[in-house]
Amino acid sequence: MEDLITCVEEQPQPPSSLPNSWTNQHSDSAQRTDEEPKAVGGFVLVHAGAGYHSESKAKEYKHVCKRACQRAVERLRAGALAMEAVAAALVELEDSPFTNAGMGSNLNLSGEIECDASIMDGKSLHYGSVGAIRGIKNPVLVAHRLLSEAQKGKLSAGRIPPCFLVGRGAHDWAVAHGIPPCPAEKMATKFSLSAYKRNKRKMEIAEKMDTPENPMKRRRQSSETENGSECLDTVGAIVVDQEGNVASAVSSGGLAMKHPGRVGQAAHYGCGCWAQNSCNSNPYSTAVSTSGSPFLASEDRVLGGVIVLRCCRCEEDPPSQDLQASLVEFLWSHSTESMCVGYMSAQDSRAKTHISRLPPGAVPGHSLAIEGGVCRLTSGAQAGP
Amino acid sequence: MEDLITCVEEQPQPPSSLPNSWTNQHSDSAQRTDEEPKAVGGFVLVHAGAGYHSESKAKEYKHVCKRACQRAVERLRAGALAMEAVAAALVELEDSPFTNAGMGSNLNLSGEIECDASIMDGKSLHYGSVGAIRGIKNPVLVAHRLLSEAQKGKLSAGRIPPCFLVGRGAHDWAVAHGIPPCPAEKMATKFSLSAYKRNKRKMEIAEKMDTPENPMKRRRQSSETENGSECLDTVGAIVVDQEGNVASAVSSGGLAMKHPGRVGQAAHYGCGCWAQNSCNSNPYSTAVSTSGSPFLASEDRVLGGVIVLRCCRCEEDPPSQDLQASLVEFLWSHSTESMCVGYMSAQDSRAKTHISRLPPGAVPGHSLAIEGGVCRLTSGAQAGP
Repeated sequence: MEDLITCVEEQPQPPSSLPNSWTNQHSDSAQRTDEEPKAVGGFVLVHAGAGYHSESKAKEYKHVCKRACQRAVERLRAGALAMEAVAAALVELEDSPFTNAGMGSNLNLSGEIECDASIMDGKSLHYGSVGAIRGIKNPVLVAHRLLSEAQKGKLSAGRIPPCFLVGRGAHDWAVAHGIPPCPAEKMATKFSLSAYKRNKRKMEIAEKMDTPENPMKRRRQSSETENGSECLDTVGAIVVDQEGNVASAVSSGGLAMKHPGRVGQAAHYGCGCWAQNSCNSNPYSTAVSTSGSPFLASEDRVLGGVIVLRCCRCEEDPPSQDLQASLVEFLWSHSTESMCVGYMSAQDSRAKTHISRLPPGAVPGHSLAIEGGVCRLTSGAQAGP
Repeated sequence: MEDLITCVEEQPQPPSSLPNSWTNQHSDSAQRTDEEPKAVGGFVLVHAGAGYHSESKAKEYKHVCKRACQRAVERLRAGALAMEAVAAALVELEDSPFTNAGMGSNLNLSGEIECDASIMDGKSLHYGSVGAIRGIKNPVLVAHRLLSEAQKGKLSAGRIPPCFLVGRGAHDWAVAHGIPPCPAEKMATKFSLSAYKRNKRKMEIAEKMDTPENPMKRRRQSSETENGSECLDTVGAIVVDQEGNVASAVSSGGLAMKHPGRVGQAAHYGCGCWAQNSCNSNPYSTAVSTSGSPFLASEDRVLGGVIVLRCCRCEEDPPSQDLQASLVEFLWSHSTESMCVGYMSAQDSRAKTHISRLPPGAVPGHSLAIEGGVCRLTSGAQAGP
């Protein structure tokens, strides 16, 4: 992949809209309620897909990113762990009919929606994942529940609890654990159904051209279909909470017109998301969520996106004896035409959203845009044993 | 994991039965037919599971490893690529009723067999994988076919071919591509059925003890069940062919009494197997196949096994102008009580098999056995382009 990439911005730079330090934005914290602790840390970064965001739909994508950030921050302010907050952000992203995750996902070859999602907790390194799951409105909640159940320990007779379930088995496990099934017709949207019909027609035309005299036309058909750069793939979120725990999550409806049973990188351990708290040998907590097709060895262009954060304690210059400060560095990067992101700290009153675009002339799949920023968090000192 | 491991043998050592160099074993090559080229390179290493191999069954496990090596070497001698040879070895391992792969696999909670398998081609870095697939005798052949189909390029209308299929969709894709379905009753064995009944009883007893007054007994039940160290998990094989291409494959019936739809590490990209040919920046071709449960962050003991080979051209000391020589270093390692392996070069008349065991007193899951060897291959010089 490195050969293909021209770094458009080689070093992560705070975008011009981003203040260098957020610690003094006390005016932004006006909406805090009285029950909350004096200083609440935590930060969330989300994306609504790396692909192509037309100007006409930009507002919708920004809006869902904003709502997803707000949901996560509400949970952080209520004292939730990073894992809970990241799941809350994902539910909001899945519930948008504009994203290719949960409701409004791409339809597969049989005209059905099958989703992939995964979540990782940086504290325990536990991981939960579902693949090719049907009839569940929020696949990330099944992944989250798998993770939570695994954290309770072994099942009866010493059995290891599942962390990756697929297909019918995943659906049945979810329902048995109180997650309600959702009828297929409620998950498809007018847009996803009309895209399916359009793709079906394209396939039929392409396959008519696949005569014995002309077998290669089929292969060489334009890849500017709904699989291509016009279309949005995965959504994702990464969070650090006030205790410095990180978590990451990812959810996707997968490729349009995929074969039933196809599982993409969103459900792959070590591919769709990663989160790992700091430890003795590494002072940084790190969380990552990716978007893009897996196993791209043979692709001539690599279309994808990623959001990343790393966080460490500020050992010097603590704001006061009662407060701890952390430094969060974050970035987003994509080789697609655009990527819509949102980010917010628990001390902000509202999320910032941004549609990142490759610069004019840059070729999607061959160039990379990187932007990011730095955020300083303060939080109440933990009562320590 | 490193904290848990005591290296029993810190450096790979050729086992006593292994000659230091195999290049002069011309007497071993007596069974070659006249059609074959003068010198045929290639090497295969297989394993039939890392777990516990009783002395009484040792003969059976050694025998299936031997047959798997022979199948791979037959293909190498016929000029097949590493990928074809590794699939042939896996079919033999899956077809044994004694291994937990293909026929004779562990039954899941519903009394059904659901298998995982994957294969990787080190030349193209293409990968094929199936998870939780039912009613297919040789899951590795579906993974292999997915890989082969992907190597043909895009589908109609520019669609990206699948590389990982699960459940019903995987089964239907296999049948549509000419792989015959296999009735469930032909895949279960007397042994797997009686183990299922025994496990079911254990579960029922354990769950009866899970009263509201006594909720933790359930969790603390012995883990010495069929999930534990008595039981064999995954099978695998790694191959280098006469052109120096490497390939790896892995296949597993997964944990006994797993939830339907559970996918294990055998079907996970980057977990179950890896193969990568040498390139400009790395003179070594490498192939790996692993066995063991994935995502073991919370496990107090790590039970697994691995086979590894790396291969490089011998630049100095070529046997003659017409011949090329390669050096293959290989090893197997396990933290389980035992692991049954077999290995063979295309120049050998028969495979060597070995049951590796932890030394007396070593604790499974906390100690590691490592053994290995070195093999020098010669092959006909390739006609240049």
